[in-house]
Amino acid sequence: MVSPEAVEFVESLKRHGERMVAVAGLSLDDQRVVAEGLQAMTGPARGVAFHDASTDTVPGVWVRPEGSDVVEDAAIVYVHGGGYVYGTPVGYRNLAGHVAKAAGVAALIPKYRRAPEHPFPAGLDDVLAAYRALLERGIAPEKIAFVGDSAGGGLVLATLLRIRDSDLPMPATAALMSPWVDLEATGASMVTNAGVDLLASAEGMRALGSLYAPGATGDPIASPVLNDYSGLCPLFIQAGGHEALLDDSTRVRDKAIEAGIPVEFEVFPEMQHVFQLGAGHVPEADEAVAKLGAYVRTVLAKY
Amino acid sequence: MVSPEAVEFVESLKRHGERMVAVAGLSLDDQRVVAEGLQAMTGPARGVAFHDASTDTVPGVWVRPEGSDVVEDAAIVYVHGGGYVYGTPVGYRNLAGHVAKAAGVAALIPKYRRAPEHPFPAGLDDVLAAYRALLERGIAPEKIAFVGDSAGGGLVLATLLRIRDSDLPMPATAALMSPWVDLEATGASMVTNAGVDLLASAEGMRALGSLYAPGATGDPIASPVLNDYSGLCPLFIQAGGHEALLDDSTRVRDKAIEAGIPVEFEVFPEMQHVFQLGAGHVPEADEAVAKLGAYVRTVLAKY
Repeated sequence: MVSPEAVEFVESLKRHGERMVAVAGLSLDDQRVVAEGLQAMTGPARGVAFHDASTDTVPGVWVRPEGSDVVEDAAIVYVHGGGYVYGTPVGYRNLAGHVAKAAGVAALIPKYRRAPEHPFPAGLDDVLAAYRALLERGIAPEKIAFVGDSAGGGLVLATLLRIRDSDLPMPATAALMSPWVDLEATGASMVTNAGVDLLASAEGMRALGSLYAPGATGDPIASPVLNDYSGLCPLFIQAGGHEALLDDSTRVRDKAIEAGIPVEFEVFPEMQHVFQLGAGHVPEADEAVAKLGAYVRTVLAKY
Repeated sequence: MVSPEAVEFVESLKRHGERMVAVAGLSLDDQRVVAEGLQAMTGPARGVAFHDASTDTVPGVWVRPEGSDVVEDAAIVYVHGGGYVYGTPVGYRNLAGHVAKAAGVAALIPKYRRAPEHPFPAGLDDVLAAYRALLERGIAPEKIAFVGDSAGGGLVLATLLRIRDSDLPMPATAALMSPWVDLEATGASMVTNAGVDLLASAEGMRALGSLYAPGATGDPIASPVLNDYSGLCPLFIQAGGHEALLDDSTRVRDKAIEAGIPVEFEVFPEMQHVFQLGAGHVPEADEAVAKLGAYVRTVLAKY
């Protein structure tokens, strides 16, 4: 039994789908503008300030809970979703704001380059550059947590794999909301949840996957479900029970267990893909964000 | 001869129009989401922080140039446009941010109620309440400037008229970008500029006017072009040469002169309605915002 607000949220998702259909014949830039309406479903994050960070080394938006220092000694890197094609730091400022408040730490939302203009690994390079820039600012790796939703969750895992295979230190943890890690959309839930998921379909995800990594959708960094997770930091995963992408999350969990990586995983019954976008007015979303924030806070407080 | 960036801006306006046509059959809420794409044309305001102000007395967004105090001794009230039906404080944060930076003072963008759900004078009541709240915070009226664009410019004038007719003190000044002050769209430029204006038409403005003030489009507060301006504060007006609404600005100027109110007025040749939305990347918009900001800064520095 979901909350009335969650029911209303689902109605908003349906309307979002209708808008996207209405503009399907327009240019990709136009569709991107309309796609921003998805993030606008998040309630305002009160007591949070947003700074355009484009004067810094890393383009993006800083999200700071009021009272937190402008020069951070800990930080979240919030990697936003949008199928590698849609979504902006400004659009995700409220969801990142709720997360930052719940964790009690400022978050940087990198403005990574998007497909199809900038295919894999351009966006990944940008997220990695953002992490490097925080380290160069003097923030210790054990005081940095990655948080990502959907394609942003996939990008976070890809970033961790790149870090592992380089000379960079691992961050403290990564918390993933409905991560999309399989560009070829082979999860069983693609079929079993096809009737209830309002945002993702196998066909749609494969189309986005081909825009992101043309000819490389089977690359084990572009599709991090295909990789081995040995040596990664602890993972925290949330998913919705009605997601076509649910089995992306379950496979990440299984891979983490297989590699001996600590992993926490929770499925929220009847919830949609990145239902945390309802934060600020949907109780289920607020509960999930509170749990995720408390997890991040605890991990970062260890050092 | 306009800049290449201004030409590109006009192309963006055309695309915005196509989007609005594409979703014309959807609900008003859906159209509002798409309408936000207009404000997204503004370049990011760097070195500015945005705070959701909904925990304060006045809902809205605070826009603070970095280094300015959190408790202001001066403020801009930025009243956004959108035909009384569209537009949000978040959408206008960057335009207000450019203005706040140019003036060197923080700006509050009130989240006023919009038509048709909340017709005239609901939005006006909200803007007036925002002004009252700033006075109650202890900001002197001579340290407050109103800035408004399009319908926001009309709302600013309506607010000044209400202030004049009440026991409230006048603010220092009001700066208007392409103010819309005639809900019945009777200006001559409605016809003479019909072929070059990409946003406003007589038919469209009358439709919005009827949504805003059903049966009261001839009210001299709802359509402040119909009022006498005696006793108002000094006015500063900018308009574009290609605007169908150009004669709303010229009539405000004439009314101000008639009433003995100091008024500065500049037409920017070949520019569109609220061309200042191009701030951050269109030189003509940056020039206009710099002038407007310098004017506000000078007036507020007098006291």
